[in-house]
Amino acid sequence: MKICRFNHNRIGVVQQDAVYDVSHLFERHLHWPAPLGDAVISQLESVLERVREEFSSLQPLKLSEVRLDSPVANPGKIIGAPVNYHAHIDEANRDNEINNGKTFTTLEAYGLFLKANSSLIGTADEIQSAFAGRRTDHEVELAVVIGRTARHVSVDTALDYVAGYTIGLDMSVRGGETPCYRKSPDTYSVLGPWLVTPDEIADPDNLDLSLHVNGELRQQANTGLLILNVRRVIAYASALYTLHPGDVIMTGTPAGVGPVLPGDTLTAYVENIATFDIRVARQFADQVEG
Amino acid sequence: MKICRFNHNRIGVVQQDAVYDVSHLFERHLHWPAPLGDAVISQLESVLERVREEFSSLQPLKLSEVRLDSPVANPGKIIGAPVNYHAHIDEANRDNEINNGKTFTTLEAYGLFLKANSSLIGTADEIQSAFAGRRTDHEVELAVVIGRTARHVSVDTALDYVAGYTIGLDMSVRGGETPCYRKSPDTYSVLGPWLVTPDEIADPDNLDLSLHVNGELRQQANTGLLILNVRRVIAYASALYTLHPGDVIMTGTPAGVGPVLPGDTLTAYVENIATFDIRVARQFADQVEG
Repeated sequence: MKICRFNHNRIGVVQQDAVYDVSHLFERHLHWPAPLGDAVISQLESVLERVREEFSSLQPLKLSEVRLDSPVANPGKIIGAPVNYHAHIDEANRDNEINNGKTFTTLEAYGLFLKANSSLIGTADEIQSAFAGRRTDHEVELAVVIGRTARHVSVDTALDYVAGYTIGLDMSVRGGETPCYRKSPDTYSVLGPWLVTPDEIADPDNLDLSLHVNGELRQQANTGLLILNVRRVIAYASALYTLHPGDVIMTGTPAGVGPVLPGDTLTAYVENIATFDIRVARQFADQVEG
Repeated sequence: MKICRFNHNRIGVVQQDAVYDVSHLFERHLHWPAPLGDAVISQLESVLERVREEFSSLQPLKLSEVRLDSPVANPGKIIGAPVNYHAHIDEANRDNEINNGKTFTTLEAYGLFLKANSSLIGTADEIQSAFAGRRTDHEVELAVVIGRTARHVSVDTALDYVAGYTIGLDMSVRGGETPCYRKSPDTYSVLGPWLVTPDEIADPDNLDLSLHVNGELRQQANTGLLILNVRRVIAYASALYTLHPGDVIMTGTPAGVGPVLPGDTLTAYVENIATFDIRVARQFADQVEG
């Protein structure tokens, strides 16, 4: 099933060209403090059967007429898996603007990084390039949304903790600062257009993915080329910290990363999930009133 | 005024040895999605006058009998300012276990880092060392809690965006991974014991701070030695991303960082805020059932 967030925080099921509003099946009242993570994602497992039974009896909306927000509203953390495709490691080590004098070896040598939750947008928003005069790159990725609290989980059971899959754009300023700095400006984490539940993804480690800029192919790979596959990335992250429902793991970008410019249109694709377009705004963020 | 969170999410005013429960003055009902940041901190500015007028008419609890939680329940992000004291840069560049072959120069070259929100605990909790066999260091810091949404703020107005100050422990595993990895295990971000509103901190850039381990002095400095002072750190962060109420900036640690071991007791002090003790648990996190 494809679960989306749309039109100011409605929860929907997407089927072909229709969206069915299933918001009423979820408890959306919270009490301070908010839970660590996303309250709707944490209910997904228990509510999904009812959603499946009831949605098609509802009045559909046209998919083309709704505004799609990030399918996760309140990620506890947005985790990035760096250098997780060999061909991307090779290109990063060839390009001084990417490697900034470092040599990338393995993901484990680098660890995971975090992206600020305030950087998150959905596919209906625009990416706003930070820092006029600096290079911002596109990085398309398979994004995993955690569905259950996970700590020290084994590789064998790791997929049991997945609520679903979505497409991530890990926008990145190039330079010498920490990845959590360069990848955290507002609008630099794109998720969407919806979450696809695991029953529709037979094998997350065999999905084609691609990214076009203004119609020109820039990144094309298959998640079968991930160095740490989805199971292993989840297990590795859960050995560091507790994963909460709604936590997002961007699993790493394949080769072909490159600069985007104001006005560009990016087209992101992951097999069995979706294709979406997103625009890069015409102005740099630091040229806009604060 | 000193504002604490205590006994399962009550909100309190601390005065000498007493805590006054002012929870009823805050709206604590939320609606999914939770706001970016902390809903109570975002109300603080508007509610504080009523809190000030009413609290002393309430029945006090004994401070020694309450359990103090992190004064910020829902930080949008926990931001760290690295290498922000010259003497700490010097010690880091002398100690291969800290610098891991890198040379630290300036904060701006390094950027800011993020700590996972799931790493946050209060002073009544225990720190649980991650990764048996690896070094975990204490880092005591002045922590700034943002009170108003801030984007591209000037150095001159930066302090207008502060809800208050608290003490931060930025616990850090040493090694080659990104700081957001090494500083994000569960329990590695300590905040407390309470938030002190800016009216009680005449100058955040002139506060003594110290850390003892088992009674032995390890870190001692004054925030006057910060390279980027509090105003400048806020302005620098707000140039990267939007700061939301409840976002926390750990302003950097002075010299004297060093390893902690299971069973240690840390005593953290920042002038005009508090002194607190916190224990390092007797077991490593990876030796505990997941």
